[in-house]
Amino acid sequence: MIEYRNLKIALLGAGNVGAQVAQLLDEHGDELASRVGAGLELIGIAVRDVDADRTANIDRSLLTTDAESLILSADIVIELMGGIEPARTYILQALHSGADVVTGNKALLALHGPELFEAAEQVGAQLYYEAAAGGAIPIIRPLRDSLAGDRVKRILGIVNGTTNYILDRMDVNGDTLDEALALATDLGYAESDPTADIGGFDAAQKAAILARLAFHSAVPVESVYREGITGVTAEQVEQARRSGYVVKLLAICERVTDPVTGAEGISARVHPALVSRLHPLAAVHGAKNAVFVEAEAAGDLMFYGAGAGGLETASAVLGDLVSAARRHVAGGPGVAESFTAHLPILGIGKVHTRYQITLEVADEPGVLARIANVFSENGVSVEAVQQSAGSRAVSMSSESMSTATLVIVTHESTEAALSATVDALAQHAAVASVTSVMRVEGA
Amino acid sequence: MIEYRNLKIALLGAGNVGAQVAQLLDEHGDELASRVGAGLELIGIAVRDVDADRTANIDRSLLTTDAESLILSADIVIELMGGIEPARTYILQALHSGADVVTGNKALLALHGPELFEAAEQVGAQLYYEAAAGGAIPIIRPLRDSLAGDRVKRILGIVNGTTNYILDRMDVNGDTLDEALALATDLGYAESDPTADIGGFDAAQKAAILARLAFHSAVPVESVYREGITGVTAEQVEQARRSGYVVKLLAICERVTDPVTGAEGISARVHPALVSRLHPLAAVHGAKNAVFVEAEAAGDLMFYGAGAGGLETASAVLGDLVSAARRHVAGGPGVAESFTAHLPILGIGKVHTRYQITLEVADEPGVLARIANVFSENGVSVEAVQQSAGSRAVSMSSESMSTATLVIVTHESTEAALSATVDALAQHAAVASVTSVMRVEGA
Repeated sequence: MIEYRNLKIALLGAGNVGAQVAQLLDEHGDELASRVGAGLELIGIAVRDVDADRTANIDRSLLTTDAESLILSADIVIELMGGIEPARTYILQALHSGADVVTGNKALLALHGPELFEAAEQVGAQLYYEAAAGGAIPIIRPLRDSLAGDRVKRILGIVNGTTNYILDRMDVNGDTLDEALALATDLGYAESDPTADIGGFDAAQKAAILARLAFHSAVPVESVYREGITGVTAEQVEQARRSGYVVKLLAICERVTDPVTGAEGISARVHPALVSRLHPLAAVHGAKNAVFVEAEAAGDLMFYGAGAGGLETASAVLGDLVSAARRHVAGGPGVAESFTAHLPILGIGKVHTRYQITLEVADEPGVLARIANVFSENGVSVEAVQQSAGSRAVSMSSESMSTATLVIVTHESTEAALSATVDALAQHAAVASVTSVMRVEGA
Repeated sequence: MIEYRNLKIALLGAGNVGAQVAQLLDEHGDELASRVGAGLELIGIAVRDVDADRTANIDRSLLTTDAESLILSADIVIELMGGIEPARTYILQALHSGADVVTGNKALLALHGPELFEAAEQVGAQLYYEAAAGGAIPIIRPLRDSLAGDRVKRILGIVNGTTNYILDRMDVNGDTLDEALALATDLGYAESDPTADIGGFDAAQKAAILARLAFHSAVPVESVYREGITGVTAEQVEQARRSGYVVKLLAICERVTDPVTGAEGISARVHPALVSRLHPLAAVHGAKNAVFVEAEAAGDLMFYGAGAGGLETASAVLGDLVSAARRHVAGGPGVAESFTAHLPILGIGKVHTRYQITLEVADEPGVLARIANVFSENGVSVEAVQQSAGSRAVSMSSESMSTATLVIVTHESTEAALSATVDALAQHAAVASVTSVMRVEGA
């Protein structure tokens, strides 16, 4: 039996992930110690209320409300409380005391990342956050380290399991959004207030973290363009299937050239998009996540796995804990993050994408030419037009007219031009209604 | 313009990958310097013959035959010569001089890994080798670091692009093995002597590296069971398709319980296998690679990308170079690999797997019961039997008999029992021939 010195571990938070971390540390502590060359001693778990009911099997004698004393005694602090405060203050206290910090707090990193990384660098400590994007999927180290010698062109990520579960149900089972959401709630995939997921807020936080890593530049979460899935209809999903696409909520981070100045910049955005069924992301079902990375030298890469779940996320936290502990054993300061590229963040209008636009138009001679004209006036080139066989009578203003359905897929253009095209179509005399607008991505 | 101190980089080898590394360093040196906080100065490229013809666009004034002097002047040595000697001696010299080493030499690591890692640990240097398994796919850091707090149960890897290209052609286009191999050779995927690829030797080296990382135990390459794809026929691929499978050459590393002692051990093996078309590995086409990892806490993960190619592999090498350079800038020793689990390596006979066995049997009453008896006598349980509609007359010894085709898929059993079953079937009076035996994996 080898005797190791013990590293003191403080855990902040005993929720879903925290409880799993405590339990796995208890079960596999000896095995982890042998990998690290030091014991990993959980010295305490900071909670708001030590007497609260807890279903998890954790040693209650470790519970304390005195987070600050706990932090000061620790070599490594694991923050799994979530939220901005007091998590931010505790992490800063831990770093200033020289402790390494492991966190899964994507909201905090998306909002205060630069402050926290700077604090870590000043004292030579290190901040680990594999659990903050992609859950159990190892994506932080690949982006930060493995691809650090390459130039990332684009990231397309399915980074929210709840919305992927919902969209997959709509695609595979033909559910409506409400039906799929109700099922996701029953199964525990969706919170009772699902806004963070279905509104795209969670995905936007992850997009900010991934874009920062991929492009070595600060990316505030406010700069991430965001649309959720609440507007996605069963008809859109069905029409996507007929056209060889599947609807996915994508977090897209890419290098963009400013169409006016020609300068290089970056863009980060979250929105539903049509993805070809032949693209590897189309095969990501249920609540699984995947991050597809296009790099100049490495080519196309994909990282696939569970994006959430207490046990799965605990795996990422413990991997960070082992890294931090190995570094303590080896000695030497942490390695800083690099934000030195300082690429400007371009607005959504400057992004290049493709639109699939579905229109109800007047069913009369010459209408297609008039519609095509709207696209060319806005500098948008049309790739394909599909006209539905049937037509129907709709009431438009006071008179009624017979209409046909047009599904138009554009070539790539700027979002600004595409958006202007849709506005012009909506006001066009021959257009009864614009029934669907979806971006097409991943080609 | 920021002025950095320069780190001195020595490159050993100017082949396909080496030339790309030199070129990318030249093109993106400033960008990489800003990520590292130090300049990356390529001080020389050691080659056997400075006057040899070179198609790559590299600065000939950097070429030298004096590798040893070059190594002694370097902070970081990149070894891309391949082969065992002099690569091994040069890497040891570099490590003993205190330089970090980046290598993509899987043959060397599979054979002399422990010696090299020990040398690195003794002097506090670090050995990086992301390019040695999975080409451009970041798999080393995820296994070594991200999953270090978890317990890997199994790895199923498509880790050889040449064989995946060949098997994919056979599956998608109906090519024979020879046709697909000829095409792979024409396209430059296969070497003029393709033995290392199609014999499974390359995959076995990668399996040894992945198993060592996943299970924190020394795994000599000789202990990896190995079958290549040379025996895979167009009929097997076609029959696999009809049964909902695809044939892939898999590198499988798994935790195994010794069926006799009950002790935990590990197994590493490379062989063609039937993979369900619903498994994510089935969607890995062409020369792409993917590593599917099953971990206790993290669940199922997959890492997908280009497994070979000069430019793609150079991305992995440069990622390692940036990691090494960042560590030099931060200071402090390297972090050692952990081999402390010391799990025993169990032979192929103790592995649990499933067989799909195709037999030509005498087309007469009662034969199925007699065949089924062979399985039960060997303790192997049958999951499904499919009998072909047609039957044909074959000459067996001096007499001829009418036969039927049986395709039998077993439940999981030990390889020893399955192998004994096949031996018994081959000698059975009612069996004209055993036409195919394939393992079924990934269920």
